[in-house]
Amino acid sequence: MPQSPKVTAVDSLPANEAKWIEFQKITWSDQTGKSRIWEAASRKTRGKSGVDAVAISTIIRHPSRPPSTIVILQYRPPVGAICVEFPAGLVDESETPSDASVRELHEETGYKGKLSYISPTIVSDPGMSTANMQLATVEVNLKEGDKEPEQALDDGEFIERVVVPLDSLFERLEAYSKEGKMVDARLFHWAAGLHFARTML
Amino acid sequence: MPQSPKVTAVDSLPANEAKWIEFQKITWSDQTGKSRIWEAASRKTRGKSGVDAVAISTIIRHPSRPPSTIVILQYRPPVGAICVEFPAGLVDESETPSDASVRELHEETGYKGKLSYISPTIVSDPGMSTANMQLATVEVNLKEGDKEPEQALDDGEFIERVVVPLDSLFERLEAYSKEGKMVDARLFHWAAGLHFARTML
Repeated sequence: MPQSPKVTAVDSLPANEAKWIEFQKITWSDQTGKSRIWEAASRKTRGKSGVDAVAISTIIRHPSRPPSTIVILQYRPPVGAICVEFPAGLVDESETPSDASVRELHEETGYKGKLSYISPTIVSDPGMSTANMQLATVEVNLKEGDKEPEQALDDGEFIERVVVPLDSLFERLEAYSKEGKMVDARLFHWAAGLHFARTML
Repeated sequence: MPQSPKVTAVDSLPANEAKWIEFQKITWSDQTGKSRIWEAASRKTRGKSGVDAVAISTIIRHPSRPPSTIVILQYRPPVGAICVEFPAGLVDESETPSDASVRELHEETGYKGKLSYISPTIVSDPGMSTANMQLATVEVNLKEGDKEPEQALDDGEFIERVVVPLDSLFERLEAYSKEGKMVDARLFHWAAGLHFARTML
C-alpha cells in the first residue's frame, strides 16, 4: 500500500556532488558595455535536440462528453507537495521533441494521440535557469464506449491522471490549490488564458 | 548608445560563491517508504510572503482600440537572448504579492492599473526548482487621447514594453520566436490557452 511521500531533510548540495543539475556563473556584457555576473541553474541532461523537456496539452474529443484535457498529479520533492501539471517529460538524448510528446503522453496517461501542434522552444524561468521546453498539442478522438487505457509507468513512478473538461479546468486548478496541491505555473497560465477568453472577451 | 548585450563566459559556480541562488540536496521518502535524493535550485531572496515573484497579465481597455496586453522584452543572461515575458519581478521582503504586481507593472511599463485577480501560489518548474510565483491580472482603462506613460526603470535596467492586441498575441509570440527572441513558457502558455479558446472550441 503506497505511503505519503515526504521530504525528510534539505541540505546544501556541493557542486561536485550534483548529478542532474549544475550551477553556472555567467559573465555577460551589458547594454553599456559593462561586464557583469549572473547566476543560473542548468540541467545536465539536454540531448541532441537542444530542448530539455516537453509538455502536452491534450485535447480529448468524445461524441457525448465535453472537450477535455488531461492533468497529472505527482509528488515533487523540490516543492514538497503533490503537483498538478500537464503530462510532461525530458526529451531523450536522440529523440525529437515531437516524438517525446507522443511517447510521454502514452506513458503517463495511457492515451495515444496525434500531434497537431508543437510550439517553438520556450524558456521556463529565464531569470534563474537555462531550462527550456516545447509545448505540444496532442489530439485524442474517442468513440462511444472506448475504455480508459492503462498507463505505462516505470517501476517507482506514481502518477495519477485526471481527465478534466476544458470549461471547468480553471476552477478545478483553483480547487486543487485550496486542497494544498501545487499547480504548475505553465498549466495554470494555459488555463487562465482559456478562462479569460471565455469570460472576459 | 546602447550596445547589444552578450554572454562572454560561462563557468561552473562553486556553491560558496553563489549569492542569489543555492543548490539543495533533498532527501525524501517515496511512496514505498524508500529514502531517495532529489536535486533542486532555490532562490535565496524569498521574503515574508513566501512567494518569490509575481507576473502580470495586463488588460488594457480603450474606447477605440482592441483589448490588449503588455509584454516586455529584456536580455536574459541564463538563456543568452532577448526574452519576451509578462511584466514580472521579485516580491520585496515585506510587501505583499498584490502590491508587488501593481508596483512592478508601473516600474516596467509606466501603466498604473487596478488589480482585479491574483492567483494562488503556483510553481515555475517543480522538477528542478523550488521557485514559486503568483499571476496577477491588472486592468488599465484608458480614455481617448491618453498618452503612453513613462516607464520608471532603475539605472541599468533596459526593458522594452510592447502593447499587443489580445487577438494577435499568439501569432506575435510565434513571430518573436522566429526572429531569435526567446518567449517565456508561462506567457506562451497563457497566449496558447487564449488562442485555443478562440480557434478550437
